[in-house]
Amino acid sequence: MFNIALFGAGRIGKVHAVNINNHPRTTLYSIVDPYVEGANQLASQYNAKIQTIEEAMADPNIHGVCIGSATDTHADFIELAAKNGKTILCEKPIDLELSRVRDCLGVIEQYPVPMLVGFNRRFDPQFRKLKTQLGAGVIGKAESLLITSRDPSPPPAHYAKASGGMFRDMSIHDLDMARFILGEDPISITAHGSCMVDKAIGEAGDIDTAVIVMNFPSGAIATISNSRRSGYGYDQRLELHGEKGLLQAGNMKEDLVQHWGDSGCVSAKPQHFFLERYEQAYINEWDHFVEILAGEAAPLCSGKDGEFALVLAEAALESMHTGATVKL
Amino acid sequence: MFNIALFGAGRIGKVHAVNINNHPRTTLYSIVDPYVEGANQLASQYNAKIQTIEEAMADPNIHGVCIGSATDTHADFIELAAKNGKTILCEKPIDLELSRVRDCLGVIEQYPVPMLVGFNRRFDPQFRKLKTQLGAGVIGKAESLLITSRDPSPPPAHYAKASGGMFRDMSIHDLDMARFILGEDPISITAHGSCMVDKAIGEAGDIDTAVIVMNFPSGAIATISNSRRSGYGYDQRLELHGEKGLLQAGNMKEDLVQHWGDSGCVSAKPQHFFLERYEQAYINEWDHFVEILAGEAAPLCSGKDGEFALVLAEAALESMHTGATVKL
Amino acid sequence: MFNIALFGAGRIGKVHAVNINNHPRTTLYSIVDPYVEGANQLASQYNAKIQTIEEAMADPNIHGVCIGSATDTHADFIELAAKNGKTILCEKPIDLELSRVRDCLGVIEQYPVPMLVGFNRRFDPQFRKLKTQLGAGVIGKAESLLITSRDPSPPPAHYAKASGGMFRDMSIHDLDMARFILGEDPISITAHGSCMVDKAIGEAGDIDTAVIVMNFPSGAIATISNSRRSGYGYDQRLELHGEKGLLQAGNMKEDLVQHWGDSGCVSAKPQHFFLERYEQAYINEWDHFVEILAGEAAPLCSGKDGEFALVLAEAALESMHTGATVKL
Amino acid sequence: MFNIALFGAGRIGKVHAVNINNHPRTTLYSIVDPYVEGANQLASQYNAKIQTIEEAMADPNIHGVCIGSATDTHADFIELAAKNGKTILCEKPIDLELSRVRDCLGVIEQYPVPMLVGFNRRFDPQFRKLKTQLGAGVIGKAESLLITSRDPSPPPAHYAKASGGMFRDMSIHDLDMARFILGEDPISITAHGSCMVDKAIGEAGDIDTAVIVMNFPSGAIATISNSRRSGYGYDQRLELHGEKGLLQAGNMKEDLVQHWGDSGCVSAKPQHFFLERYEQAYINEWDHFVEILAGEAAPLCSGKDGEFALVLAEAALESMHTGATVKL
Repeated sequence: MFNIALFGAGRIGKVHAVNINNHPRTTLYSIVDPYVEGANQLASQYNAKIQTIEEAMADPNIHGVCIGSATDTHADFIELAAKNGKTILCEKPIDLELSRVRDCLGVIEQYPVPMLVGFNRRFDPQFRKLKTQLGAGVIGKAESLLITSRDPSPPPAHYAKASGGMFRDMSIHDLDMARFILGEDPISITAHGSCMVDKAIGEAGDIDTAVIVMNFPSGAIATISNSRRSGYGYDQRLELHGEKGLLQAGNMKEDLVQHWGDSGCVSAKPQHFFLERYEQAYINEWDHFVEILAGEAAPLCSGKDGEFALVLAEAALESMHTGATVKL
Repeated sequence: MFNIALFGAGRIGKVHAVNINNHPRTTLYSIVDPYVEGANQLASQYNAKIQTIEEAMADPNIHGVCIGSATDTHADFIELAAKNGKTILCEKPIDLELSRVRDCLGVIEQYPVPMLVGFNRRFDPQFRKLKTQLGAGVIGKAESLLITSRDPSPPPAHYAKASGGMFRDMSIHDLDMARFILGEDPISITAHGSCMVDKAIGEAGDIDTAVIVMNFPSGAIATISNSRRSGYGYDQRLELHGEKGLLQAGNMKEDLVQHWGDSGCVSAKPQHFFLERYEQAYINEWDHFVEILAGEAAPLCSGKDGEFALVLAEAALESMHTGATVKL
Repeated sequence: MFNIALFGAGRIGKVHAVNINNHPRTTLYSIVDPYVEGANQLASQYNAKIQTIEEAMADPNIHGVCIGSATDTHADFIELAAKNGKTILCEKPIDLELSRVRDCLGVIEQYPVPMLVGFNRRFDPQFRKLKTQLGAGVIGKAESLLITSRDPSPPPAHYAKASGGMFRDMSIHDLDMARFILGEDPISITAHGSCMVDKAIGEAGDIDTAVIVMNFPSGAIATISNSRRSGYGYDQRLELHGEKGLLQAGNMKEDLVQHWGDSGCVSAKPQHFFLERYEQAYINEWDHFVEILAGEAAPLCSGKDGEFALVLAEAALESMHTGATVKL
Repeated sequence: MFNIALFGAGRIGKVHAVNINNHPRTTLYSIVDPYVEGANQLASQYNAKIQTIEEAMADPNIHGVCIGSATDTHADFIELAAKNGKTILCEKPIDLELSRVRDCLGVIEQYPVPMLVGFNRRFDPQFRKLKTQLGAGVIGKAESLLITSRDPSPPPAHYAKASGGMFRDMSIHDLDMARFILGEDPISITAHGSCMVDKAIGEAGDIDTAVIVMNFPSGAIATISNSRRSGYGYDQRLELHGEKGLLQAGNMKEDLVQHWGDSGCVSAKPQHFFLERYEQAYINEWDHFVEILAGEAAPLCSGKDGEFALVLAEAALESMHTGATVKL
């Protein structure tokens, strides 16, 4: 059994707590969160300790840390954990500033602990299946990838700003997904954005609707279609065209019941948000992290991957502002 | 070019008129209908003659007759056409009385003209494809057939009675379809009916909801699910289970546009009624009739098939009334 | 926390063990199984005790028993648990013999413990949603129910016999489902069966393909289409026609990835078998059982429901053998 | 009845010939084609005259001309027809050179004859339904349009060049569709292309894979995804996101039969090419043209629309070559 310290008892921390607890090889050993009430609740539910940052980092019983705290603490916690020899799972992003990310990765290089960056979608069974089928040659060489990613409804405008903007906060998942699926790094990126959903988001200097196009060395083209609002749940689809056909990963719906009536045939909406849609992805991510803890696997999503996604997000921003394609 | 006399200028007559006119090898030569206004309208639209029954039957220019008149005239017209050497397409049923059907078929045997009975669904491309795939071994041996056939809305109660009742009028298509798809004749039939849609239909002595089960020599079982009302258009589906899987022929929808919104994902209803749903079936039926006219094909649906379907409808009625399976 | 003794460490026992362990309000306290190796494995995995029947029944720490042992032990364990005041979850059937079921229910009446009979499909979210929508008036009054239930592949012929035959073993779920969905008890039943899948099953005196029709007091008709083999996974569908339209509960597929290529558009098969298909149903069933343990709910599937399903299975058998409808 | 002269007896001419012949208000009066054999065949099939260009243009019996001849004859025939007072249906494009298009439209302005430019997809019932639903407010304001348009298989490289290149030949339909659906004119265009399908196309100076992004004054963004090859038939889809949800126009499949078996659930491919996919669009286009002939409607796709589509194709080419967004 591996003992885990969970940093952050908020929304995403709770997701990890369930998975840590249900996994036959891990124990939720302690919770670290300055928000005492949330920490206590999780701790009592799972019979875990409450620890301070320092206690957890110094505790020799702890094998791994799961960092799901506020974004601006990620890099510090990573560095501390590395220095204390803990295996690390850190939610994306490592930091919103590229320079800080690079400093942090420099520290990691000095301390040989494995780190998994939590681009959870890489562990989604649908997207995995699509990637597996591509690898198996089902459609031959990849030619064109279309990623559709739309949130159910927009965040408050102040969040939009604080989160680093749409590209750094939301599109970053899709930028990573394109690299993950195609298995190569883009050579150029062009981004278009507009503010269609909420004027206040625009006034805060951000966008809510975007299209990003990336060109890859093989000639393949990836297109990302993003919006902060769908009107019908969490829209998460991939479409990959290749030499011999198309692979599509569709939305997961709330249920499979259809109603046929006078106004048409009605089926359920896509699942509402990432907690439902990527529930299995988080479980599989944790499975993978346990394999890393056990020395059975190397991280499928490294610090370098986290850095690359941020580089792409910044290049997209530059492209949108200059109106020109950015070479990478 | 084959010259055709069309008997009946009503709803179904108009369907045939379009197809006769559009087919490159047939001419709509004349219209025969005691309802002068309807006859005149069709005749002027297609530049066809108006003829009496006697004139059409005696006219040596006419190669084939298309009988789409009132049901109680079918057998008479068939006999006249046969005696005059015309190739015959007759809408189902030949007659509502089995004895009259048998007399009529006796006449046909004396006069060697080809006759095609218009079980139009045999010519539907969807059902054909399913039968072709069965024949090609895609699912191995057929084991279980489910036919779903529901009208969009019930007829007036007086029609229900005049038409010979639900089994003779509506289920007869499905009884024929089961023989057509499975390629064998049933050995027993069990029918269940109830009046759920319109009380007046029950008071007129008929039913509006039915389930019919037929057993076949191979062990295959066919189930027919009928209703006079769907609430969502014309529901026409086949589902055929075999050794190696399932073949399904789904509904044709009004269009392919989907709306995803707050209340779900909405697609169009099935096409409203048989005129839309079986438009292509009627065109293909006419193509086949032209091949018969040209001596290039034998009728794919014979007088014997028409008789068998009526035998099954009557057996279903007997089973429902006695509550026992009827051996055939 | 409620302590649970699990009787039976086999396939279905393992399903319950996971759910008991993951539920925040239950503890897997002990395992009872004469097959020592299986019991030990589960016990060590979940840190549970090994107990004998007598120990578990007498242990005052145990609040509830989960009976997933061999069918012929169910009634005995139920009686013992009732006498010892344990709340009971018992897998279906209570027994294969109706008289034994009735004796057992008689004992339960004397000892006022709540018992939930494990017709797991009643807890399936898809079927629940359909029932909820019916209750909400979405399609008006129910008129016609079609249940499709096909196993992926046939059991060995000796199992077919030992399990009480197809109606008692397999169709029994569907017979219960019809009552559950329609909310009324059938007044007659007619069954048709044949042996199409495996000759050995026929030689053992059983069937592998069946159609069952039930009539209900409201006039509604339920049709069950069963086969021991689908060729494409576990086929579990409901279709409910009402005054104003249709509700369909479709299959759950292995994944949502489609491949469009030269030979068509290919999507995944239905999930392979009941362990995957009804995974959530078992979790929800356990949630419900915890509510029963806590006195927050009455069993949604009672001993009487278990008895009724067996009555229907026996009537179906009689109908198939006599070729006549059986009044209930 | 309106008499029609058909210019061009090739593939597209034959499509129009059927529709002209089947329409109750038009007669296929004459065929004009320098390829005598093709002209004779169509003429004898539909009992039409053979005429020279000059004869047809001068013939006072002819009300309308349908121009389906080689692209480089379109502008000349349009001018001749305009000067002779014939109502014009001309296949797209008017010409591959923008200057020639503008000269031609100048001539049309002098001679007040109505002209319909044959962007056939504007008449497709699926796309019309989507536009109608947008107009009816079903999804509120349009925010993001995605057009997927993929040919089944690439043309020979020499055709790619002769046709004016992928943007002028193929994407031009999608560029027009974006304006048609959104009902506004784009303010900028960015294009990305690569040669993934056939090296010879690249050597001929063309591309076979493209993504085009257009920005509109309202803030809406349109994305076009093109390929000369799909591997699974003719892929023609629209996806329109708005304030309140999504409208999708899906592919029309070859049939509605599904096969569920060991390797998955297989449904038919999209219809193979434009002749099948847009069969109804061509019929509706002809209906509309008859209304124009009868003075009942103004052309829904004008010469200006034809010109605008070519302007966009050229701007896309410029963007791809310069790697910069082109303002319009």
